[in-house]
Amino acid sequence: MLVVMRHGAAENDIARVVEAIEDMGYEARPMPGHQRTTVGLVGNDGRVDGSRIAALAGVQEVIHVSKPYKQVSREWKAEGTIVPLGGGLTIGGDEVVVMAGPCSVESEPQILAAARAVRESGAAVLRAGAFKPRSSPYSFQGLGLRGLELLARAREETGLLIVTEAMDAEGLVPVAELADIIQIGARNMQNYSLLRRAGRAGKPILLKRGLSATIQELLLSAEYILAEGNPHVILCERGVRGFDTATRNLFDLSAITVVHGLSHLPIVADPSHGTGHRDMVIPMARAAVAAGADGLLVEVHPTPDRALSDGAQSLYPEQFDQMMKESRPIADAIGRKIAEPAGVRA
Amino acid sequence: MLVVMRHGAAENDIARVVEAIEDMGYEARPMPGHQRTTVGLVGNDGRVDGSRIAALAGVQEVIHVSKPYKQVSREWKAEGTIVPLGGGLTIGGDEVVVMAGPCSVESEPQILAAARAVRESGAAVLRAGAFKPRSSPYSFQGLGLRGLELLARAREETGLLIVTEAMDAEGLVPVAELADIIQIGARNMQNYSLLRRAGRAGKPILLKRGLSATIQELLLSAEYILAEGNPHVILCERGVRGFDTATRNLFDLSAITVVHGLSHLPIVADPSHGTGHRDMVIPMARAAVAAGADGLLVEVHPTPDRALSDGAQSLYPEQFDQMMKESRPIADAIGRKIAEPAGVRA
Amino acid sequence: MLVVMRHGAAENDIARVVEAIEDMGYEARPMPGHQRTTVGLVGNDGRVDGSRIAALAGVQEVIHVSKPYKQVSREWKAEGTIVPLGGGLTIGGDEVVVMAGPCSVESEPQILAAARAVRESGAAVLRAGAFKPRSSPYSFQGLGLRGLELLARAREETGLLIVTEAMDAEGLVPVAELADIIQIGARNMQNYSLLRRAGRAGKPILLKRGLSATIQELLLSAEYILAEGNPHVILCERGVRGFDTATRNLFDLSAITVVHGLSHLPIVADPSHGTGHRDMVIPMARAAVAAGADGLLVEVHPTPDRALSDGAQSLYPEQFDQMMKESRPIADAIGRKIAEPAGVRA
Amino acid sequence: MLVVMRHGAAENDIARVVEAIEDMGYEARPMPGHQRTTVGLVGNDGRVDGSRIAALAGVQEVIHVSKPYKQVSREWKAEGTIVPLGGGLTIGGDEVVVMAGPCSVESEPQILAAARAVRESGAAVLRAGAFKPRSSPYSFQGLGLRGLELLARAREETGLLIVTEAMDAEGLVPVAELADIIQIGARNMQNYSLLRRAGRAGKPILLKRGLSATIQELLLSAEYILAEGNPHVILCERGVRGFDTATRNLFDLSAITVVHGLSHLPIVADPSHGTGHRDMVIPMARAAVAAGADGLLVEVHPTPDRALSDGAQSLYPEQFDQMMKESRPIADAIGRKIAEPAGVRA
Repeated sequence: MLVVMRHGAAENDIARVVEAIEDMGYEARPMPGHQRTTVGLVGNDGRVDGSRIAALAGVQEVIHVSKPYKQVSREWKAEGTIVPLGGGLTIGGDEVVVMAGPCSVESEPQILAAARAVRESGAAVLRAGAFKPRSSPYSFQGLGLRGLELLARAREETGLLIVTEAMDAEGLVPVAELADIIQIGARNMQNYSLLRRAGRAGKPILLKRGLSATIQELLLSAEYILAEGNPHVILCERGVRGFDTATRNLFDLSAITVVHGLSHLPIVADPSHGTGHRDMVIPMARAAVAAGADGLLVEVHPTPDRALSDGAQSLYPEQFDQMMKESRPIADAIGRKIAEPAGVRA
Repeated sequence: MLVVMRHGAAENDIARVVEAIEDMGYEARPMPGHQRTTVGLVGNDGRVDGSRIAALAGVQEVIHVSKPYKQVSREWKAEGTIVPLGGGLTIGGDEVVVMAGPCSVESEPQILAAARAVRESGAAVLRAGAFKPRSSPYSFQGLGLRGLELLARAREETGLLIVTEAMDAEGLVPVAELADIIQIGARNMQNYSLLRRAGRAGKPILLKRGLSATIQELLLSAEYILAEGNPHVILCERGVRGFDTATRNLFDLSAITVVHGLSHLPIVADPSHGTGHRDMVIPMARAAVAAGADGLLVEVHPTPDRALSDGAQSLYPEQFDQMMKESRPIADAIGRKIAEPAGVRA
Repeated sequence: MLVVMRHGAAENDIARVVEAIEDMGYEARPMPGHQRTTVGLVGNDGRVDGSRIAALAGVQEVIHVSKPYKQVSREWKAEGTIVPLGGGLTIGGDEVVVMAGPCSVESEPQILAAARAVRESGAAVLRAGAFKPRSSPYSFQGLGLRGLELLARAREETGLLIVTEAMDAEGLVPVAELADIIQIGARNMQNYSLLRRAGRAGKPILLKRGLSATIQELLLSAEYILAEGNPHVILCERGVRGFDTATRNLFDLSAITVVHGLSHLPIVADPSHGTGHRDMVIPMARAAVAAGADGLLVEVHPTPDRALSDGAQSLYPEQFDQMMKESRPIADAIGRKIAEPAGVRA
Repeated sequence: MLVVMRHGAAENDIARVVEAIEDMGYEARPMPGHQRTTVGLVGNDGRVDGSRIAALAGVQEVIHVSKPYKQVSREWKAEGTIVPLGGGLTIGGDEVVVMAGPCSVESEPQILAAARAVRESGAAVLRAGAFKPRSSPYSFQGLGLRGLELLARAREETGLLIVTEAMDAEGLVPVAELADIIQIGARNMQNYSLLRRAGRAGKPILLKRGLSATIQELLLSAEYILAEGNPHVILCERGVRGFDTATRNLFDLSAITVVHGLSHLPIVADPSHGTGHRDMVIPMARAAVAAGADGLLVEVHPTPDRALSDGAQSLYPEQFDQMMKESRPIADAIGRKIAEPAGVRA
């Protein structure tokens, strides 16, 4: 930590900063400069809470040199984490894992049709929500437990693994029981109570980036899960809030490289929420694979124009098939491959 | 709802849109134009989910004319809501309610000193967190139930009402029992499970705007609470995510006028989180009062340089006193007054 | 400047950083820490370009301690700058200067009616554009030189000073000749050629903040003008790009306190562009005065529903009159007053 | 255009809107609804300025259905524009054009070394600035005319085409004379005087997206150039202002698909400014090609750690070589190819 003093700060002020640092159990190193003095804090093993110091007279700014997270960082663990998803499938290695399916489970025929279609085109994981966070209380909120049962049916029939969202503590229990991967949605990225529980649920967690979360905040939220003893976290870029209404969100593909630089955790990309428009999903899926994403999360619906939610951004099954066909050579070009579904894989 | 067709959309495409609208139970009115046809949807009583239509061939854009919220809108209820807070204090009328205190309850001496100081300067409500959402799992997380007991002690001694945050379903029960006003924090603005429970908790709710929430999203979250039968919601502007690191957040004071235009709910402003710097709190508090805020939420700590959280943005008691002195004539200038604390008030 | 090395950077890498700093003529101070080494750069008189260093192997981050601007900073000049505007009027002192008028000069009757109305209500400066930067090439682009002549007419008749925009080098010449204050618009905030010329034009400059400019960037643009020998710069907050379409821009009132902290230059606020809606202008004008703005820039049109540009955000003359009436007691409350127009003033 | 009236707007208000529309020469179609009346404006051939209408009593909102630009839109011209760059090279067709080189021309040996290196690895165009817009007046501002001469030398020796920036009217003349493509920088995207002149300069224009420009604003700026009779505009995505300091800008790759949907103009991507970090350039370059970019603009410096500007984001020549090697199979995968430099090409 570096404390930057104001130009012309009194000797007194500097002495008080030094004292405060020593009082916190660290060593202080004042460095007088032409324009202003800075005081380095030495001896810390991780991030120090600087807001006490920032409050002192004569202090202009406190600059953090250490990162506030630990276990999620590449400095803590240099080699990439490979998360086992079940049935021999893993994420974080050479294979790019495609997770596809409708926004919500709507009915047995709908989810089975979706599962068969995405399995057919080569997806390895089925995505669909049973519990849906909706910004309006008057929108369709998901089928709940019945939705989970239908997902189990779909898995039984197709062999696809299941990723589905848990919205709260109550829902987490049945989701953890049924799902292969528990999704924590963007709106809950900083719901710390839920993160802690998810950390004890015994299943891999797919953690979506909040609408205006920095990568550092995303990593800190992942740290909550790792701190509970669960190392199996998959991050997900799904677009951040932008100023241009041409897209639903601003799809931040550079997040993939930033995460790969700072952390050992795998990261997948969701071009459906990232753009909000079906026509943009295929090129952005290709771009995500080219950028090095460890997986894709894509909305596919058997009949998008009858979808109860997110119809405008859901691919038709034939479009998904095209997306898979176009993504495979991109993966090849960078020395990876698209993971095959179980059955094909085994 | 207005469906804008692409330039050169086929007759077929238009017919399909008309059919889909009729299939949803509404009336469709195609309007051919020079450049493109638009199709109006008529007969709806509130907002219609347009994503099904957006997914149809030839559709360029779906434009919503109705607002997605109901009970929170001024069109639903024209006169402003006056929320009774207890002890005869209300918010939403002529009086501007100042809520002040430390970020967190840290100890009995600390919270009592803070309570006495802010009471002395004229605050009517004591704010302090017992349960703290922190972006790092390694930061101080609050005293929990013990913190609530200390808040009760402070109320007993000073007569101040209490506002404190509930972070999850478990915490909500004791908070609802003890607090006069339940705070839902910015990170939980779209935690719908928590909003629903808060709607049934029987106490006024202070709902903070999420870090990148639009006003419409804030109102939709309030709608979750009203939909459970609780009309006593106080909104709070506390800064949104901005691009300039000169302030912690971007304090959006125009939110006050936007909310007053669209909704009958009162709105308070939090210049402490809104700026993140103690030196900016006083001018921004004055500005909030001048803009018409129904209250202020301000961090004050007896010894900010020893605060366990948010030290840099907490006022010294003497600064808070100055803030109160400068805010009173501003309130007068617009025909309002700062609410007196109980005892003084009665 | 502080160079933060990566965790586990080689001794070699550190040596190369030290060498590069010395090569640039400064002194290097390596500080080994528990987690990583940092290297301080000492001996600089201002900001050093760190991108060379950032490019070296093993370097994680370069942190700037010095500010990149000089003459505009409070460290360079502690007391606030008072800019003389002409006719005895100044800005930057106790008086709050109101500049009001239509978006564009449209005709002689229009500008004269506007000038009389705003003079009547107490404005000291007439604002109106003769050269208009418009995002579409097909929109009304202003009357040009004819507009300047009409502004001169209005000044002659009312005694109001004139502020009007110069869009390019050609336009700057006649604007500098006629106007009392030259406005550089938000879109041109980083048009450095224009800034340099404006710095040599011999008139005070009103420099509007760019749509997504940080305060630091705004100050750097002002530095271009001061560097040419013109100390008479007035900054202007007019809203930045936000994500909520409820307002045209996100009016950043905390910019006023940030600028007052970092710089000695005066700053005015433009609630018309800041909000884009007539109904929000009055409360936001009050808020700006309460926050300590040195002036206001407000759009007023004699008949806003016939305005050729910005009709929706222009006040009716009677609304402007109300704005003035409501702003005076706010100014009083903070120990300032609204500047009277010439004639009244003298 | 659709005028949405407030809930409970008076008959009078509606009549006045109808009158105003008819007064503007269009037809008005009122549509009473359950919640509110809307009034459609029919008969317009392009976008109508709605701010007059927005200012009328009882009007809630004015919604534009027509786009404000014309000649740049796909509705105006369905097939993609292929811009001839010189020497048989074109952009906008199947070939992906790579433009590479240092941020600034610094010296003859530097620019020649850079030109040879990028030519060797397969770039077709040399990029480098002679006139540099810098946020600080104290930073290196480019070599000016001498820089242009050195670019001519480099072209002569390597056969590479030249793209370089014109910052103002004066600089435009020599740049137009020498360069094969004239670059208009992000800070000048809304410098309309410069855009008009660029439209008459007789060379293809590379127009960079402003730091917080929407795609619509970018297209409107391009419209200024086309309106002067120059159809040869190449758009460029180079990152927008974001809230996360992990990258210099927020690289918006979905802009490529948005532009391809709305306009017939080609668009290139600049991953150097888009990310600001050398390590992220290669994956983001791959992603841009996969997303369908018509070209890349990349900073390469023979010795980045001695660069006078943008050192941290400039590739080493061997990294650029790797970027080209990795981009070729990506282009192949989507049925395109990287354009060869002249000589190889011919």
